[in-house]
Amino acid sequence: MKALVYHGPGDKSWDEMPDPTLVAPTDAIVQVDTTTICGSDLHILKGDVPAVTPGRILGHEAVGTVLEVGESVTNVAVGDRVIVSCISSCGTCTYCRSGNPSHCLADEGASGIGWILGHLIDGTQAEKVRIPFADTSLYTLPDGVSDSAAILLSDILPTGFEIGVRYGRVKPGDTVAVVGAGPVGLAVIATAGLYGAAQIISIDLDPSRLALAQEVGATAGINSGDDDWKEQVLALTDGYGVDVAVEAVGIPATFELCQNLVAAGGVIANIGVHGVKADLHLERLWSHNITITTRLVDTVSTAMLLKTVAAAKLDPAPLITHRFSLAEALTAYDVFARAGEIGALKIIITP
Amino acid sequence: MKALVYHGPGDKSWDEMPDPTLVAPTDAIVQVDTTTICGSDLHILKGDVPAVTPGRILGHEAVGTVLEVGESVTNVAVGDRVIVSCISSCGTCTYCRSGNPSHCLADEGASGIGWILGHLIDGTQAEKVRIPFADTSLYTLPDGVSDSAAILLSDILPTGFEIGVRYGRVKPGDTVAVVGAGPVGLAVIATAGLYGAAQIISIDLDPSRLALAQEVGATAGINSGDDDWKEQVLALTDGYGVDVAVEAVGIPATFELCQNLVAAGGVIANIGVHGVKADLHLERLWSHNITITTRLVDTVSTAMLLKTVAAAKLDPAPLITHRFSLAEALTAYDVFARAGEIGALKIIITP
Amino acid sequence: MKALVYHGPGDKSWDEMPDPTLVAPTDAIVQVDTTTICGSDLHILKGDVPAVTPGRILGHEAVGTVLEVGESVTNVAVGDRVIVSCISSCGTCTYCRSGNPSHCLADEGASGIGWILGHLIDGTQAEKVRIPFADTSLYTLPDGVSDSAAILLSDILPTGFEIGVRYGRVKPGDTVAVVGAGPVGLAVIATAGLYGAAQIISIDLDPSRLALAQEVGATAGINSGDDDWKEQVLALTDGYGVDVAVEAVGIPATFELCQNLVAAGGVIANIGVHGVKADLHLERLWSHNITITTRLVDTVSTAMLLKTVAAAKLDPAPLITHRFSLAEALTAYDVFARAGEIGALKIIITP
Amino acid sequence: MKALVYHGPGDKSWDEMPDPTLVAPTDAIVQVDTTTICGSDLHILKGDVPAVTPGRILGHEAVGTVLEVGESVTNVAVGDRVIVSCISSCGTCTYCRSGNPSHCLADEGASGIGWILGHLIDGTQAEKVRIPFADTSLYTLPDGVSDSAAILLSDILPTGFEIGVRYGRVKPGDTVAVVGAGPVGLAVIATAGLYGAAQIISIDLDPSRLALAQEVGATAGINSGDDDWKEQVLALTDGYGVDVAVEAVGIPATFELCQNLVAAGGVIANIGVHGVKADLHLERLWSHNITITTRLVDTVSTAMLLKTVAAAKLDPAPLITHRFSLAEALTAYDVFARAGEIGALKIIITP
Repeated sequence: MKALVYHGPGDKSWDEMPDPTLVAPTDAIVQVDTTTICGSDLHILKGDVPAVTPGRILGHEAVGTVLEVGESVTNVAVGDRVIVSCISSCGTCTYCRSGNPSHCLADEGASGIGWILGHLIDGTQAEKVRIPFADTSLYTLPDGVSDSAAILLSDILPTGFEIGVRYGRVKPGDTVAVVGAGPVGLAVIATAGLYGAAQIISIDLDPSRLALAQEVGATAGINSGDDDWKEQVLALTDGYGVDVAVEAVGIPATFELCQNLVAAGGVIANIGVHGVKADLHLERLWSHNITITTRLVDTVSTAMLLKTVAAAKLDPAPLITHRFSLAEALTAYDVFARAGEIGALKIIITP
Repeated sequence: MKALVYHGPGDKSWDEMPDPTLVAPTDAIVQVDTTTICGSDLHILKGDVPAVTPGRILGHEAVGTVLEVGESVTNVAVGDRVIVSCISSCGTCTYCRSGNPSHCLADEGASGIGWILGHLIDGTQAEKVRIPFADTSLYTLPDGVSDSAAILLSDILPTGFEIGVRYGRVKPGDTVAVVGAGPVGLAVIATAGLYGAAQIISIDLDPSRLALAQEVGATAGINSGDDDWKEQVLALTDGYGVDVAVEAVGIPATFELCQNLVAAGGVIANIGVHGVKADLHLERLWSHNITITTRLVDTVSTAMLLKTVAAAKLDPAPLITHRFSLAEALTAYDVFARAGEIGALKIIITP
Repeated sequence: MKALVYHGPGDKSWDEMPDPTLVAPTDAIVQVDTTTICGSDLHILKGDVPAVTPGRILGHEAVGTVLEVGESVTNVAVGDRVIVSCISSCGTCTYCRSGNPSHCLADEGASGIGWILGHLIDGTQAEKVRIPFADTSLYTLPDGVSDSAAILLSDILPTGFEIGVRYGRVKPGDTVAVVGAGPVGLAVIATAGLYGAAQIISIDLDPSRLALAQEVGATAGINSGDDDWKEQVLALTDGYGVDVAVEAVGIPATFELCQNLVAAGGVIANIGVHGVKADLHLERLWSHNITITTRLVDTVSTAMLLKTVAAAKLDPAPLITHRFSLAEALTAYDVFARAGEIGALKIIITP
Repeated sequence: MKALVYHGPGDKSWDEMPDPTLVAPTDAIVQVDTTTICGSDLHILKGDVPAVTPGRILGHEAVGTVLEVGESVTNVAVGDRVIVSCISSCGTCTYCRSGNPSHCLADEGASGIGWILGHLIDGTQAEKVRIPFADTSLYTLPDGVSDSAAILLSDILPTGFEIGVRYGRVKPGDTVAVVGAGPVGLAVIATAGLYGAAQIISIDLDPSRLALAQEVGATAGINSGDDDWKEQVLALTDGYGVDVAVEAVGIPATFELCQNLVAAGGVIANIGVHGVKADLHLERLWSHNITITTRLVDTVSTAMLLKTVAAAKLDPAPLITHRFSLAEALTAYDVFARAGEIGALKIIITP
């Protein structure tokens, strides 16, 4: 089969690779019908994720068709259309059973799994992929949901919803500020209404992203380059600050910004992948009754989000800006790498 | 001033009455700008609520303007536009402090308050009304919210949301069945989206109410007169039954219906005012992991709902079908008494 | 091997039976070191559970040693001391993943599993037993916990804790009334302190059981045969009624009793297995802000309860009153069948 | 009357002062029967709390007898024995109604109240004290609870329970590490059992405090001066780390320590009053699914804790180490200032 293979920092190619085969009775083999590229794929290509070794097929998001299942698999059958979750989980370890499958302890050639596709084992940017623990890592798709909508349920929508909205404890009537309007920030904005957010404020430096944020559900857009960005936020909240501040960038400056705009009693939900420590202003916040959460996506909300998409209560379409064929995967990477410049968000790749 | 006065079963008139005055330092006097009629006003007129004695001014819903405040009142000031909550609460007793102000223990000429307006003390179907415990029983209105929208926040929207949606524990992705499509049932339907309901099924005997239900947010309407009503519901839920069944009628038959359609693990939220006991099928349900809740409205969600209305996330306008002046209050009662026949829901009365 | 075999209503014997063998890759074979008898075993022997067919080995509680595991099993290994949970669950179906494994949909020769041991497949009153889905149905025992303590974690303690305490939403400071002081009621009493219950009132007709209840944690015992039983309860709660009423009998009269003593805002948690419907006094309770829950045990608390036993925060020893060898299983049944008369609670059976 | 008066940094005296009088209809005057000294009183005396101006009577904890009430006061009456809460709250502002009375917005000569006694208005280290908003700031004492037990409900027990246990989200079976074994850390240890903590690990540099911690409920004591303190903690948790780490000191080093021992999925609950910012290791913790909370005490748990003390489920006596008369208040301060050296915890002062 053909696949997008990592050969070391800065080096990838579209290669002929052997077809995957069943290894464990809990495995499934899935034909990839749609896949996409994630920001972490770019991190891998920069050499920032040393666990990814040369020869690895990249990609951890897909919609596909089940080709083969191991003898223990009962939830999916050959021929089923499925979402491949970005998180693989055994369903039986301590972490899986306590709702934290991103920290799954199952052994798949590494100490613990969670995110392994295109990371510790071969991934989804290929014609076929082996999925360990298929029963708890694949979701059957109903007929009415398109591949384009479903592909966003592999990673980005659960990420935005679980880490930003659910762990941010958004509740009806809340004012939510989302710092960073990249794909994940927009996924927070798109799903904040599922817990009845009244005001959703998008904060970013890029006016075009702020405009897009309002298309997917933001009620206000504030440019953090403005001198009075904080006053603008406070003006929308009677001076109190926001109920929930979602950090969707991953640098100390944006985490600091969240500390500046959260109201007493509020929540800062961190989604950003941070490379360095940040300052926590306990000298001020110790008395502010705030909560800070950090989290990997667990994709425990995938089945639920699928219901809301199937019921047309959530429309992820505006998050998709470009489409390519699998054979054009290298071009797709080029476009995604210049996402800011081009105005790209999620790029869909189909055979 | 003029007011609608109860004179005993079947007997009401539009009378000249003395203006209300401050009695306690926690009181306020409010000029009524908009009021409405509730189903319980009709119950009173039938003589079903013996605590209401002849001479009582009826009505427990209003939007108005503060004319005067007692010396302890700090949350509202003369000239403020306010919502009068249908629940009066002291804010300091055991029940108020545990989130159950409908069971408020404060003494206002009766053992406990809660619903007292137009019940134990004079109400809102008048030019002016005295509001005890104004700080915790009035809500200041922002400029952008009209009287017509705000009047529904006095009672019906908090009732539908608190008892049906919140105590029904509606959560994102849920299927909610609302049995009864009268004003309160429709308020449940209108607010179920605040917790991300995916499917909202309205169940009623009246096709015109089912049509209206779909206007305010129902995704399906099922006529409970159909022989296969239950099969229709199950077909929408892969055979499991609904996550939440809301009883918004108040008779044994509809409570039974809820027991027939709730899924294992689901919730039956009772809003209906029942006059007789019902059968509870514990011989079947003991093993079904279900929850049943009963409740008076506490109006603890009023401030939150006001934010969602102000942010245009909730539009209560379709619930209002008729408008009258205060002087036409008797006609308004006639129309409301024939609501089913005429297709009336909420009737707004303004000076 | 030897086993206790059901041969039809009223007919059981201690027979030679074939050793169990692995059937699925997710199975384990466990040597039974300790088992016990449950009230439902007596129901089966009366012929009340028609799903149990002649030839079935009874019993669904055990502590044992793993003899053999299927190739997919990873959480337990040969030689491990384990608790056999009364609930078998696949860990991957909709119900297992939503915290309701008692409604597990996995197919084990029946539509759905949950309680299958000694019911739909052979059980634990034998020298060996096959356990399906071993990864999610067995719990490894730390050295410091005795078989006698652990056997109560198979069923009775999770049942009392999950259905009575957790679904009764006991919270610190609460007054809890437990109606029925049989083994399960006592398990509620023994575990109510895990959520900080301040007062735990045991209600029963049998003075000796009331005395025992106080040994395991009840702060008061009230005889429901007393004319003034209700006044006695109210006197302990300043007249309000109890925060949580747990029904641990299973007849209409005791469910009625719970409705009579629950405070406004309180919870009735039903554990009892009911054979007939009950009256629900909605004509009074519709306005009392109460919650009623029903539930099968899910044994999702087993691992947690094991920690509290290991830490000596929970001592289940007083619940065990008699001990027999496996060969004396028929005698043990006789004693347990006359539990009320003899003062027996849980009877431990060891080889 | 006599009172302990602050005259500027390092300067206090036992002075004759005018008796307090009712100012607002919501006030009460309370005769102080028992009071105590808090660490924040020492901070004030160092000049660290500039809002406290010379001439202020210190103290925010008391048990007393109501001498006089304003005309709006209904929850307490002349002659009642009461606990004076360290938090004064109006009960009606946004923050009070959302469960955050520590941020109460009521105006009592300052922008917002909360902690005002012995801070913004005269306090409890006196023969009498004026209590604003008496209905929501005083708690009637049942006969069976002694002054010595009740005085700890003014501040220290709600502080430990609310900020450490409740916001730390301690749940049955958890392992809780409490960093710092001063009075507040010990209050966390004493109340962690109300949510069923299985292991409670006290961490401190002082062996005598670690010993005391075990008297009030700790199951292990670890000296943070030991080189292998972290390994000792991990050994108690199968290598995972603790479920809840409570910071009860208030310096960057101890906050860092909490970050080092919390398990994935765990909570860090900060009680410490911090004077400088701390490092937050997001470069590691962003993926650890942790929650950090900060908080002022709200004393919303006072009534509940009083029930547990009255029911003898919580015994605060071991936290009291010294007793003085009110006339010896200056000596009491001397002893408390040398608490570490002397082994003093809470010092009770009675007339």
